[in-house]
Amino acid sequence: MKKLINDPTMVVSESLEGFMKANQSTLQRVEGVNGIIRKNMPKQGVRIVTGGGSGHEPSFLGLVGEGMASGAALGNVFTSPDPLTILTVLRSLKNDDGILCLVINYAGDTMNFGIAAEMAAEEGIKVSIALVTDDIASAPIADKAERRGVAGVLFVLKIVGAASEKGYSLEEVTLLADKANKATRTLSIALTPCSLPGSPPNFSIDENEYEFGMGIHGEPGIETKNMALADEIVEEMLTPLIEELQLKKDNEVIVLINGTGATTDLELNIVNRKVTQLLEDREIIIHDSVIGSYCTSLEMAGVSISLLLLDDTLKQLYDAPAYTPSYYKRGE
Amino acid sequence: MKKLINDPTMVVSESLEGFMKANQSTLQRVEGVNGIIRKNMPKQGVRIVTGGGSGHEPSFLGLVGEGMASGAALGNVFTSPDPLTILTVLRSLKNDDGILCLVINYAGDTMNFGIAAEMAAEEGIKVSIALVTDDIASAPIADKAERRGVAGVLFVLKIVGAASEKGYSLEEVTLLADKANKATRTLSIALTPCSLPGSPPNFSIDENEYEFGMGIHGEPGIETKNMALADEIVEEMLTPLIEELQLKKDNEVIVLINGTGATTDLELNIVNRKVTQLLEDREIIIHDSVIGSYCTSLEMAGVSISLLLLDDTLKQLYDAPAYTPSYYKRGE
Repeated sequence: MKKLINDPTMVVSESLEGFMKANQSTLQRVEGVNGIIRKNMPKQGVRIVTGGGSGHEPSFLGLVGEGMASGAALGNVFTSPDPLTILTVLRSLKNDDGILCLVINYAGDTMNFGIAAEMAAEEGIKVSIALVTDDIASAPIADKAERRGVAGVLFVLKIVGAASEKGYSLEEVTLLADKANKATRTLSIALTPCSLPGSPPNFSIDENEYEFGMGIHGEPGIETKNMALADEIVEEMLTPLIEELQLKKDNEVIVLINGTGATTDLELNIVNRKVTQLLEDREIIIHDSVIGSYCTSLEMAGVSISLLLLDDTLKQLYDAPAYTPSYYKRGE
Repeated sequence: MKKLINDPTMVVSESLEGFMKANQSTLQRVEGVNGIIRKNMPKQGVRIVTGGGSGHEPSFLGLVGEGMASGAALGNVFTSPDPLTILTVLRSLKNDDGILCLVINYAGDTMNFGIAAEMAAEEGIKVSIALVTDDIASAPIADKAERRGVAGVLFVLKIVGAASEKGYSLEEVTLLADKANKATRTLSIALTPCSLPGSPPNFSIDENEYEFGMGIHGEPGIETKNMALADEIVEEMLTPLIEELQLKKDNEVIVLINGTGATTDLELNIVNRKVTQLLEDREIIIHDSVIGSYCTSLEMAGVSISLLLLDDTLKQLYDAPAYTPSYYKRGE
């Protein structure tokens, strides 16, 4: 598996170095660890820290900026950042209003963010943690809290980032993260595997099949299915999302069509076309649609569909402006 | 080659439909053809039309918006838009100040934009054409005008888009396109082939090799080389760019590290790291660096490096704000 890398063990730190060279005007490196924070942040206000394994770019480093994350702690490829990395990022963001850690729900991430938060608390840093658990393929609804976090993190980050800019308290921002997470559902499919730098592909998918419910690190899906037309695949993906959120006429949603790596924009747009048709058929109102590769699995070909069910609070926060290297939204 | 499509012959129109569903607030479809234009444009001012074959997304439809293109005419995958499509887009943008067609230099594109421009002129629409010829691998410097246009179109579009917002005349905008094109150079490499929807890969690259100078439609490169470290490949790519632009100490440049499809952000960042080091070694000033997949070749893995050599005029225009679905720049 050819990749444009030097030393496989240096991929994350060299990438961060190259990323920072392009983003010096708005971001800064946290000294000594693979972490970044915003430059010129308002002194006041809750800060938002996110992070996780690398290989999901632009999650998380490309989502740091005004109206989104205040900082990110980065692990090796598909590996949680260690507690010291997270703690160092938390220290660099310390202020009186506190820090929310927004964490996608994987054992390593929750453990390490948990340890770092405890150590930070001992140093007098106010920290809370909220989990993202949007992947409906990873556990049945009865075990909702066990579900993994995937591309829906973009929505939750957008909401809490806006709340932080508006001066909400740490308690309020934490509750909002939970509210946004509960209103978000995602389902993913994969057409091809991916390979860690310096390694062969970490699983295989037959040329005539695709993996329904694939996780972002190649966790097996619910079912291996025969390849089908885009419209058929989209209908199978969207139906359970609509059911879980119990969407009905006049509900308002945000749609995210997320490419997982090698997926072309042509394909993502075709997926959005069918998603829009199916939602419009049910007279569900699409307040906004986001199309792009925001939470990837290296060079895996595939797509995830996320829905965020809005209420007035979430809608107002979603509509607020945000400016990061890989995502922007002009205020309304 | 699995893709998320329905009918291979409908890929472009279905994609455009899905794209428009997500961009209704700022863009509108040109009726009857595969073309789009901005909504709520200022009545006055030169308009910029770009376009070309599909499969290079977000070029060109994702680059329509404030400070960039006013409209785009889209062909089938790797095929120029036909003259009627272009003409229909030109008609929908007609005003007193005229339209610049910014065209990447391929036989089909220059022919069809030429025919459309002539037909438009007969209808009383003021039109000029400027070509982008930034790919230094496609012809020697003695035949510079024959060179193909590739990812550097982003720079030229940025410059003319800003000039149009600032009220420059059609003649001035056309001269600026030429000036920006002359100051732009690009070199591309490919690690893997790509495949047209419904077709097998259109060429092959051995697992231990890469293609140096590869074109955006799989046009053969200058040389097939043995796979190497990212830093070695980058040095081979950057050296001829620096030489052609005769860059020296204190020159100011913009860098574009462009992914061609399946390239991960990790890799693009690692490429930018080395590009920055090499330019800094020569005391060349990097005014800005853009990292992302802006001119793709479907799911081809690879990268192109573009440099734009600035003078005061180009710098001021580059720094102006722009907001499109796939690219933004906040004003300075």
